[in-house]
Amino acid sequence: MITADLLLTNATLLTMDKELHQYEPGALAVQAGNILAVGPEAEIKANYSANQTIDCGGKVLMPGLINAHTHVPMTLLRGLADDLRLDVWLMGYMMPVEREFVSPDFVRLGTQVAAAELIRSGVTCFADMYYFEETVAQTTAEIGLRALCSQTVMKYPAPDAQSYDESLASAREFIARWKGHNLVVPSVAPHAPYTCTEEILRATAAMAVEYDVPLHTHLAETAIEVENLKQEFDMPVIPYVKKQNIFEAKVLAAHCVHIDDSEIHTLMHHNAGVAHNPSSNLKLASGFAPVSKMLAEGLNVGIGTDGPASNNDLDMFEEMRLAAFLAKSVTNDPTSLPAHTALAMATRLGAHALHLGHLTGSLEPGKRADLILVDLSPLHILPRFRRDSLGVYAQLVYAGKSSDVIDVMVDGKWLMRDRQLLTMNEEELHTQVEEYARRIDLFLIQREKSVLSKLIAIGGAMEGESFEVQAKARIVDPAPVLKAVEDPEIEVLHRRQYHEYDTYFQFEDPNQGTLRYREDEIIGEKGEVSNIRYRLTLIGQAREHQLPSDVLLSRSRFLASATHSCRFYREYFKPSSEVFIQKDRRRWRVLFQGTEFYINLDKVEEPDLGYFLEVKSRTWSRKDADHKALTATKLIEFLGVSAEERVQMDYLEIVKDQESGGVSA
Amino acid sequence: MITADLLLTNATLLTMDKELHQYEPGALAVQAGNILAVGPEAEIKANYSANQTIDCGGKVLMPGLINAHTHVPMTLLRGLADDLRLDVWLMGYMMPVEREFVSPDFVRLGTQVAAAELIRSGVTCFADMYYFEETVAQTTAEIGLRALCSQTVMKYPAPDAQSYDESLASAREFIARWKGHNLVVPSVAPHAPYTCTEEILRATAAMAVEYDVPLHTHLAETAIEVENLKQEFDMPVIPYVKKQNIFEAKVLAAHCVHIDDSEIHTLMHHNAGVAHNPSSNLKLASGFAPVSKMLAEGLNVGIGTDGPASNNDLDMFEEMRLAAFLAKSVTNDPTSLPAHTALAMATRLGAHALHLGHLTGSLEPGKRADLILVDLSPLHILPRFRRDSLGVYAQLVYAGKSSDVIDVMVDGKWLMRDRQLLTMNEEELHTQVEEYARRIDLFLIQREKSVLSKLIAIGGAMEGESFEVQAKARIVDPAPVLKAVEDPEIEVLHRRQYHEYDTYFQFEDPNQGTLRYREDEIIGEKGEVSNIRYRLTLIGQAREHQLPSDVLLSRSRFLASATHSCRFYREYFKPSSEVFIQKDRRRWRVLFQGTEFYINLDKVEEPDLGYFLEVKSRTWSRKDADHKALTATKLIEFLGVSAEERVQMDYLEIVKDQESGGVSA
Repeated sequence: MITADLLLTNATLLTMDKELHQYEPGALAVQAGNILAVGPEAEIKANYSANQTIDCGGKVLMPGLINAHTHVPMTLLRGLADDLRLDVWLMGYMMPVEREFVSPDFVRLGTQVAAAELIRSGVTCFADMYYFEETVAQTTAEIGLRALCSQTVMKYPAPDAQSYDESLASAREFIARWKGHNLVVPSVAPHAPYTCTEEILRATAAMAVEYDVPLHTHLAETAIEVENLKQEFDMPVIPYVKKQNIFEAKVLAAHCVHIDDSEIHTLMHHNAGVAHNPSSNLKLASGFAPVSKMLAEGLNVGIGTDGPASNNDLDMFEEMRLAAFLAKSVTNDPTSLPAHTALAMATRLGAHALHLGHLTGSLEPGKRADLILVDLSPLHILPRFRRDSLGVYAQLVYAGKSSDVIDVMVDGKWLMRDRQLLTMNEEELHTQVEEYARRIDLFLIQREKSVLSKLIAIGGAMEGESFEVQAKARIVDPAPVLKAVEDPEIEVLHRRQYHEYDTYFQFEDPNQGTLRYREDEIIGEKGEVSNIRYRLTLIGQAREHQLPSDVLLSRSRFLASATHSCRFYREYFKPSSEVFIQKDRRRWRVLFQGTEFYINLDKVEEPDLGYFLEVKSRTWSRKDADHKALTATKLIEFLGVSAEERVQMDYLEIVKDQESGGVSA
Repeated sequence: MITADLLLTNATLLTMDKELHQYEPGALAVQAGNILAVGPEAEIKANYSANQTIDCGGKVLMPGLINAHTHVPMTLLRGLADDLRLDVWLMGYMMPVEREFVSPDFVRLGTQVAAAELIRSGVTCFADMYYFEETVAQTTAEIGLRALCSQTVMKYPAPDAQSYDESLASAREFIARWKGHNLVVPSVAPHAPYTCTEEILRATAAMAVEYDVPLHTHLAETAIEVENLKQEFDMPVIPYVKKQNIFEAKVLAAHCVHIDDSEIHTLMHHNAGVAHNPSSNLKLASGFAPVSKMLAEGLNVGIGTDGPASNNDLDMFEEMRLAAFLAKSVTNDPTSLPAHTALAMATRLGAHALHLGHLTGSLEPGKRADLILVDLSPLHILPRFRRDSLGVYAQLVYAGKSSDVIDVMVDGKWLMRDRQLLTMNEEELHTQVEEYARRIDLFLIQREKSVLSKLIAIGGAMEGESFEVQAKARIVDPAPVLKAVEDPEIEVLHRRQYHEYDTYFQFEDPNQGTLRYREDEIIGEKGEVSNIRYRLTLIGQAREHQLPSDVLLSRSRFLASATHSCRFYREYFKPSSEVFIQKDRRRWRVLFQGTEFYINLDKVEEPDLGYFLEVKSRTWSRKDADHKALTATKLIEFLGVSAEERVQMDYLEIVKDQESGGVSA
């Protein structure tokens, strides 16, 4: 007779192991948080005694559900903006609000709210990706849930980092600190191919390999992502990220909506896990993932809710049901993705997708005791037919609700008994959540007439690099410059001539920034107009904490092709004033001391201001910006500019300064 | 000051009227089951006093949800058979079990179970279609829900009718009895174009017009339905049923998955209501209904769960959410079918689809008080943003759960308060449900090796007409028959010659019936084999209650094209014995005294039995069968057959009788 800590008896026991063993009545023995034994009740009772025995009263005893992809703190943004196009939703609402509000406090509260919902719906383990992931990990561990916590890295400024260099550093520290924790597995999350540079992908892959932790990312979520990558790199998403070495790491790839057979094969070959997100893919109209094919190939495909701002909940019962339904309709075959497969995805396969299959996902001796009890007696889930042993899975997946989950144990510790949460207090969260909602509401109401959100709303706006390096001078004679660029110290990569017609829209609230409508006539070799390009650029205010260098700026810039007329944009944006500037620009893309710059030699014709010289570069990396600032100064000096000739203002400021009677430097 | 029975105050009041008026805090006055007034709390309080005032504590007060298409008694078959093809599911499981078990007792219990789930999920009105609809109506009225109850009519024998003549008669009586009831609106339900004859469609349309009640039917659910109709009648579903006059009635059409723009226009023109069933359409892989187009055209599209055997629940919160999600992904536009539209479909539009828009579906003075209170305080539905007045609909549709419904009122009467059901006792239902499940399990286990289910499982089996009229004789000389068929009394419509090779599979259990594999060589004018046809027919035992006439039989027959070899079927069905019969058949399709018959003149060659003459017809209608039986006797006599020559046995029986040493009559 072996002594265990706890015996669970009289259960409809679904192991969710590979052979889908069931025992009824079944029993399970727990010792030190581990599953010691699982089997028919009589057998377990004959071999094990325990300090405590709990009669499950015929309830289903099964592994806890695994939410394979989410962003838990986003509970606080649930319902903030729905029924919108992805770019409007993401860049018009989520990102601006996140930059304003996301803090360790926000992340902690959002994680607590999510944890309550996760536990109540039978989830014992989830894969998260967010900012301040340290706080997600800390909060999760306190409450007692299991999680794969992934620190986001991307090229845009994030709530927890001014640039990706900082994110990489903090991801590394986070992983080092949490590696080996009994509940939290730390990991790194390059956000997606289209939000990361190649360098980010390579650096995060190397970090995941170095620490032997999973790498969590979004891959091939939308058709446009695939299209853009094909245009730019002439390859689909999976080969592209493979080229950046990410499959050297243990990958968890969310979405994988737009991938073909050969990409599925690549994922399989590298033992990548996939998180299928049916609600989110439908709600954002991302497309239909080839789930049946991935499963047929043998991939570990789990099910995720995605973040609660694009779902809008964390209910894995809804998600399992939808995964099964969708696969049937997409393959036009109602036998596709049967209930037991959906439940396996939400348990065992999900655990393997997270690369945590050795710890959780099924009730098997040696795994940790992550389990739930589900009541099959409510009328909405009755009757139970026993003719087919697979019937009980259909009952759970097609008729079960999260509210049928009665008890939840993680790592041998009860988190919920009889629908009462034991490790957290739900009541005290309500006021805090309401306070965040009130503040976010206020923030959004105030930027109601935001130029940025209006720009994004009409589509196609992309955020430009965060850091701008610009050395500028007002010069009298262009001849020395024209000579200097031909010096062998400067390698000219490309040269062009433009005639530029810029209309600047200005708004009463200077925080709105300035919107520039630019018509670029591209001048051919014989002086003819060979092409015309129209572009909108929203130029934000420089950030409050100005950077030290006089050639270095940090401000947001959003760029979009202008597909409508200047009149359209005037009527649409309703600027309070306008400035028009026309200039002739000769432009060189050059390599100078190993660094790429643009050199602009401008003749400003309207208003007539004469010649200006600009040395320019933009980058996502703060470190890179610092380096370029130094070199830019050297380059403009090399071009013959003296200190007195230097100016700090941009053209708009110069024109306005002149109009107000000032004297430009 | 006007006095009301009840004032509901301090509510987040969503009227769901056409302009989506909201009041917060709002109030509503109820008088004699009617909504007397709705508006801002201050205004209502200033003008109305009441015997009872209930403070809603900020909960959402909104119209009850309307389940626009279901089969409520099928709760008892929930989970019986899932993840199967439609034909296997319907003909292999649902129909056989229904024929065996569906009774007034079954229907009563199933309706009670459904009612508990419906009330608990905030449904106040549903559109039902089933057998013994009288019992559905009775049970629904007792519990106090509102319903459109539709008595099914179809060409197959049904649990409540041996043939459709009976169903038509009982539908008429049902409608006459319930017309004018304050909760139940009776109606007639021709099941679907492919399960009804043209006569059924015409008769039910006429009945609905006569009594001015809605007509409830399934239209264009699957691609195969459309394909078959196009092949047979050269038109799509909507024009076909229009030709049968159904749009003269107030139509509620479930599914409408495979319809084109012009069919949508026809539905609109005739003010037909549509019930969209997202879960069922996905689960059975029926396809994606053009919901956004239907809504854009202005159709009243409601949302239904369909029966709980193909969903598998009655949860309208799941259904609303899915309706919104699916429309987005199908149109590839996340702004399609926003949350407020989904909620309108589940309330006001649904009521109009049921042709009950004057009674329910929104909170407006003059409508009946069908309303629910929904709690927005659980963590899974928080936060509430107020910037956009449409946000509350997104909160309900995307994050709300059926368990958030706290109180339900129908027709001014509370059915649930604080999640306690007031008009029914859920506890006493459990044992009865389990007992049905036990019996159904047993029935299905016993027919485990059913030939029929195996036939259906390999696809394409169709049930033949229920009634067989056959007059048969063993004759010596075929010459008088050949002469008689040329008599002007008989109009020959078609003539053919076959060489038939029949293999009869027999099984140990005679209840399995006999499976015939037939090879028909069709003989051309010059005696050549012009074509070969292979067919399987499963011939059931004659029904227990044999019909009186000696030429009339009632037994099931299932026909399928044989796409495999005889060897394949032998190995697949594993018959316990076989009989082989080969004959030459001359066949005439004739019109005799206004009735169509087949005349078969057979020369049985193996075993050598000589000549037989058969006069045959089949029909779905019992009345028609009685009539044809009389005429068939006259026809066989006209062909010169004497009473002594008549035989009652079919070929298989004759051969077996001869083998066992008997003497055939």
